Amino acid sequence: MRGEVVPLVTIATAGNPRSEVLGRLADVSEDHGLEGMANRLRDLRALTASDFVEVERALASMPSGPSRVRQAGAHLLQLGGKRLRPLCVALSARCGSGYSEAARELAIAVELVHAATLLHDDVVDLGERRRGEATARLVYGNTTSIFAGDWLLIEALRRVQRTRVPGTLERLFDVIDEMIEAESLQLEHRGRLEMDRAVYFRVVEGKTAALFRWAMFAGGRAGGLDADHCNALETYGLHLGVAFQAVDDLLDLSGEEQATGKSLLADLSEGKMTYPLLAGLERDPGLRPTVQEIVRLTASGQAAPKALLAEVLGSLTRSGSLDDCRALARRRAALAVEAITTLPPSAARQALEAVAQSSVDRDR
Amino acid sequence: MRGEVVPLVTIATAGNPRSEVLGRLADVSEDHGLEGMANRLRDLRALTASDFVEVERALASMPSGPSRVRQAGAHLLQLGGKRLRPLCVALSARCGSGYSEAARELAIAVELVHAATLLHDDVVDLGERRRGEATARLVYGNTTSIFAGDWLLIEALRRVQRTRVPGTLERLFDVIDEMIEAESLQLEHRGRLEMDRAVYFRVVEGKTAALFRWAMFAGGRAGGLDADHCNALETYGLHLGVAFQAVDDLLDLSGEEQATGKSLLADLSEGKMTYPLLAGLERDPGLRPTVQEIVRLTASGQAAPKALLAEVLGSLTRSGSLDDCRALARRRAALAVEAITTLPPSAARQALEAVAQSSVDRDR
Repeated sequence: MRGEVVPLVTIATAGNPRSEVLGRLADVSEDHGLEGMANRLRDLRALTASDFVEVERALASMPSGPSRVRQAGAHLLQLGGKRLRPLCVALSARCGSGYSEAARELAIAVELVHAATLLHDDVVDLGERRRGEATARLVYGNTTSIFAGDWLLIEALRRVQRTRVPGTLERLFDVIDEMIEAESLQLEHRGRLEMDRAVYFRVVEGKTAALFRWAMFAGGRAGGLDADHCNALETYGLHLGVAFQAVDDLLDLSGEEQATGKSLLADLSEGKMTYPLLAGLERDPGLRPTVQEIVRLTASGQAAPKALLAEVLGSLTRSGSLDDCRALARRRAALAVEAITTLPPSAARQALEAVAQSSVDRDR
Repeated sequence: MRGEVVPLVTIATAGNPRSEVLGRLADVSEDHGLEGMANRLRDLRALTASDFVEVERALASMPSGPSRVRQAGAHLLQLGGKRLRPLCVALSARCGSGYSEAARELAIAVELVHAATLLHDDVVDLGERRRGEATARLVYGNTTSIFAGDWLLIEALRRVQRTRVPGTLERLFDVIDEMIEAESLQLEHRGRLEMDRAVYFRVVEGKTAALFRWAMFAGGRAGGLDADHCNALETYGLHLGVAFQAVDDLLDLSGEEQATGKSLLADLSEGKMTYPLLAGLERDPGLRPTVQEIVRLTASGQAAPKALLAEVLGSLTRSGSLDDCRALARRRAALAVEAITTLPPSAARQALEAVAQSSVDRDR
């Protein structure tokens, strides 16, 4: 499996001066005899490299003034990231008339919204590590992190408004509303381990997929595409978002901390329902007391013993729940690719296909 | 002094079905021989009563769905409030072409922004009482209160955008940014007791006056007024906002908890700089160790002994710092009135004058 890995980070950071992983991974693909993928990666890099130089520059130059709120916002933005949502905007716009200045502003905006939610999430989850570094809330405090998130959100909305691309601001309000509702739903179920599949998907679609949907819609609109094509792109965003979250769920259980930059088993410890856990508890109800014990220990401020965590991980592996989660991601990636078959063939459409396919195997 | 009191709450809740204080206070004014003020109150009530029925209805019908985030938002909205900011929008619009549907939406929006900041403030300040009731964060938790604030903010922005009144959305983004920066500045100075007047006014102008400015600007724009008139209204908002905050500072020290619905001496205990404290420390530097001790005790979770609080209050009274704060409010109210002399005479302009003048003596 690992041989086919084309981590998305390489694609999205093509223009990030601090990373030249794309070239390195094209080489790795070649070493593995995956010449086709290596070539596609190089093409993608050529396609989007310049798109991202300006996005990175804008994100890096966001903070202004000495205020701690600005510093906390800058702290997160400067840790980099996959920049997958801006990539969606850029490629979606390129499916139409191209990556205009408006599209670039929308690409920056979607990353700012994402960064705002990360700042707030880390406060809510008491997160300590993000992208391999201390979270803003540890460095600047919870309150400053909340205000920093508010600031980035307002900055995002301001940029979207300035583009005057029809429908994008209204839609972003709706999407932020969906994100808040999904966070609320997740919060209500936290630690109760009784979430069913319907609720799980409502949370994931609101918390993660909604913003991907918006990124695709906004790019399409900026590229002047008609309603049908924008809908197709949005459907792509929905499925990519769910696939993305499913892989995130997996990485929480089986990722390498050095690659993901997050603490392993954080979701599990925080009592957050993930897809493998959902499937695992369905298949092996006897697992519930162990999981409940982990959640109880973490909630009371104690670290769960490694043996307990290993027991859960072992059960999820044996019951095939991890494989199921990967299969879910693969299915959704396929649906994402299928959704955009109605678009005229283009390099950008091919790139979106590669993004969806490679996202399933990403390791960070 | 009390005989002249015309609490603003009476004006702003004229259309609130749960309060008929306006009539009561017109009677009280009459009892005190203030026939002129009683008549003006009755006129104001007639002028704005119907304006507010719909604002109240919209605020009361905001929550939808069973989510705890919506419930937390509704909790705050249903506690009522002075509705002073919507009143500003309504009167400002009436200085122009009138209180249109767009003006009403802007009036609702400004109260939603205000409510959003209260929800977040109570989390930041660990507030326990608001409008005489338990804060949303005590009932629903800190996280839910934060998301509820986010929700109300997005709902406000959405309404402003839908009105399509030129400039109002851009200006609201700027104002929210100013509010965040002011909160950040206040946070950085909290407990350090070394804020100078320049910083104090920067905090107040951002935290409180900016939204009043926006309310006046938005109403004026909805009423079709030209840039000069809108500027005049905005200047009114700036000064009214500072006057309003100065009275809030006073009420924290000398208000009656039953009237204000807040805990007395909360600002002082939280190490927040208020105008009387600023003036008092300038005049009596010997007061500093006592104030510092109160802040230290509160920060470490202990209640400050009443004797210490009484000592500070006594010093501020003796040094004339409380009177000074009232004088500041009076000056700013006069500047507010002066700012709108360039507007054509109208019942709405007179009402704005009455609002500014009576705000100085409000007791809640």
